[in-house]
Amino acid sequence: MTTTYADSTTPGTHTIRPGAFGNATELRCRECGAASPLGAHYACSECFGPLEVGYDFPELTREQIAAGPHNIWRYRELLPVPADVASFPNTEPGLTRLVRADRLAADLDLARLWVKDDSGNPTHSFKDRVVAVALTAARELGFQVLACPSTGNLANAVAAAAARAGIRSVVMVPHNLEQQKILTTAVYGGTLVAVEGTYDDVNRLASEIAGEEETWAFVNVNVRPYYAEGSKTLAYEIAEQLGWRLPEQIVVPIASGAQLVKIDKGIRELVELGLVEDTPYRVYGAQATGCSPVSAAFHAGHDVVAPVKPQTLAKSLAIGNPADGPYVLDVVRRTGGSVEDVSDDEVVDGIARLARTEGIFGETAGGVTVATLAKLVRTGKLDPAAETVIINSGDGLKTLDAIAGRVGPKATIRPTYEAFTEAGLA
Amino acid sequence: MTTTYADSTTPGTHTIRPGAFGNATELRCRECGAASPLGAHYACSECFGPLEVGYDFPELTREQIAAGPHNIWRYRELLPVPADVASFPNTEPGLTRLVRADRLAADLDLARLWVKDDSGNPTHSFKDRVVAVALTAARELGFQVLACPSTGNLANAVAAAAARAGIRSVVMVPHNLEQQKILTTAVYGGTLVAVEGTYDDVNRLASEIAGEEETWAFVNVNVRPYYAEGSKTLAYEIAEQLGWRLPEQIVVPIASGAQLVKIDKGIRELVELGLVEDTPYRVYGAQATGCSPVSAAFHAGHDVVAPVKPQTLAKSLAIGNPADGPYVLDVVRRTGGSVEDVSDDEVVDGIARLARTEGIFGETAGGVTVATLAKLVRTGKLDPAAETVIINSGDGLKTLDAIAGRVGPKATIRPTYEAFTEAGLA
Repeated sequence: MTTTYADSTTPGTHTIRPGAFGNATELRCRECGAASPLGAHYACSECFGPLEVGYDFPELTREQIAAGPHNIWRYRELLPVPADVASFPNTEPGLTRLVRADRLAADLDLARLWVKDDSGNPTHSFKDRVVAVALTAARELGFQVLACPSTGNLANAVAAAAARAGIRSVVMVPHNLEQQKILTTAVYGGTLVAVEGTYDDVNRLASEIAGEEETWAFVNVNVRPYYAEGSKTLAYEIAEQLGWRLPEQIVVPIASGAQLVKIDKGIRELVELGLVEDTPYRVYGAQATGCSPVSAAFHAGHDVVAPVKPQTLAKSLAIGNPADGPYVLDVVRRTGGSVEDVSDDEVVDGIARLARTEGIFGETAGGVTVATLAKLVRTGKLDPAAETVIINSGDGLKTLDAIAGRVGPKATIRPTYEAFTEAGLA
Repeated sequence: MTTTYADSTTPGTHTIRPGAFGNATELRCRECGAASPLGAHYACSECFGPLEVGYDFPELTREQIAAGPHNIWRYRELLPVPADVASFPNTEPGLTRLVRADRLAADLDLARLWVKDDSGNPTHSFKDRVVAVALTAARELGFQVLACPSTGNLANAVAAAAARAGIRSVVMVPHNLEQQKILTTAVYGGTLVAVEGTYDDVNRLASEIAGEEETWAFVNVNVRPYYAEGSKTLAYEIAEQLGWRLPEQIVVPIASGAQLVKIDKGIRELVELGLVEDTPYRVYGAQATGCSPVSAAFHAGHDVVAPVKPQTLAKSLAIGNPADGPYVLDVVRRTGGSVEDVSDDEVVDGIARLARTEGIFGETAGGVTVATLAKLVRTGKLDPAAETVIINSGDGLKTLDAIAGRVGPKATIRPTYEAFTEAGLA
């Protein structure tokens, strides 16, 4: 027997199988609260507001979770995925290290600090989490192509996930993208398309294609409600890795803002399910000053976010019109946190500081987060005595330009012990 | 009370604490079998043969291991490390994905294939495993500096591990190394020294310094017996991730050959301890033709390995005089495997094939291994019906040059749907 949720947004004659979305029950408008059936919707049919996944969770124990696989699928009961999700080929992201960061803590006069290091994911960014959930939704909804507009991390994650699943990918990037990012996407053998224009042009084209090609799932467009849920796993993992409890403070980088909002959603779900104690926590957002519309809105006391034209080396965070901006403001204000921004120089210092103290080489987004942490301490907005977790969402190997000219050899010597001692290296 | 193993090779007045090396009992010559006490020895005092760690293992259960941390320290009872090893700051490597590779298997007409993907380690190569054990030995032996000569992966791993542990690192590299590799080492803030000369010159200088600076631990020189044991964890993880059983065939890349030899040692330990059933397995070695001294010796039926001058793009495997070469020949012949070599063109094809079928972007060493697997199947030396595991030891992001000019965008288009369809992309 197949119960069908099928509707006009389900490609062709595909019928959705029972349990395709696990414990998810509906899509719910984040503005007006109206419910839509589970499908490839992303905007409310009543008010055009963004949709998010609603659930009816069963009882769930810590032991059940711990008995699951060593990746995000241990939390499958809390995601819009079927019970057999782990049996389909996927990149198996998640359960990345939560690193106790005593040396960085000492450097900043903090009592207790952890780094959630998502550079350990298969393509070395948190995007593997969201893409894995989007891929599952795309398959269950009958889509045949996995697609996205991107300038970097998302392109890698989509191309790799599609390759492993054996489906076609179409990744669209600005034509003047660095050769490095072209190669790390093209190697997976999908359809990589260079578009003559800016990232905004690429994005517009993607939306146009999404409207025309009904068998294509654009991970961050028409299956976005599912995709975004993947970020909740960051909260689940942090809580489980702390021994099933919440940190008191979390600092999260902001691009679209979805990661921060979903981390908060994940925490609230854990509390509702009784998996962690309901202890207070504050969520802080981190932006680069060259693209800081949410920080600006926060400081001005606004509820809406005015778009900006990005100008920062933290390219993975350079979204001038962040879709989840208003929801970020809600979370930050509700929990008593704040949003701060830091200069590109501080970003580079942040990258170097994290590498030097903890041996973790983060990308520019990690630099933004570390530098923001430092600023929050300096300005007294973060309690140095409270336990803090920061997110390192990507890998420094992908943004080497940021540190070029800033670090290098201490000395160049002839190959003799004499030269070595003369250079003061002994 | 402190029992002392101290001897002339222990720096200064340092006394080794009881249990510093866990269940390890001695260093044993791999040539003449003579025992030396646990210390910073690496050559036999009787015959100058290389030393390896000997143990007196306690009873150990699968459950005890599974209850340990999600990294190599779950196997601490089988390594020369103290029981509290995980409480010291380290990069926490290991427990990387074992990926079921059905699409690559189908591509090669194999029944069942797995990829052990060590690019998921903290600095994205298997070197994090060996360096973590070397760091522990260095600390327990009273060394104050962690050092190495390197051209890439080892440099990253040593610099990161030392940064996290808060000790000084000195990494020596050839002065003409790619900027990329300079940056990914220098960012950790240790002492990076560029040496005017070839890698052989750097290596010679390192040995000279090791003889002069008695508080310096060169991970791959004076603490090498401990360092090399780290590779055993690859075998432990593969067996545990397969549900505590052995694969029938394993294909391993060869640089010094230590990784292959230690994987075999790890397997035999698991069998001796009754942690896996004693089922037959064959070990295969993979080299690039441009640096294939072990393959040449294997095919010539020799017991010794004649050094070569490396000329291959697989730089992480380019050791012309591999220290463990003869032991590799022993393992391969004893288990009924073989050693093969592949051209640089095949290496690049191997990288692309792994990425395209499984979404795993390996470095050139991974390309060597995949291409060798294909050759073994083609020449009938590997049983296509038997379960096989291959090792991907590093990350494609570090060797982008290998694929530059070989992969790229399918098309460059104007940002319109019309241009998109005209290019045949729909």
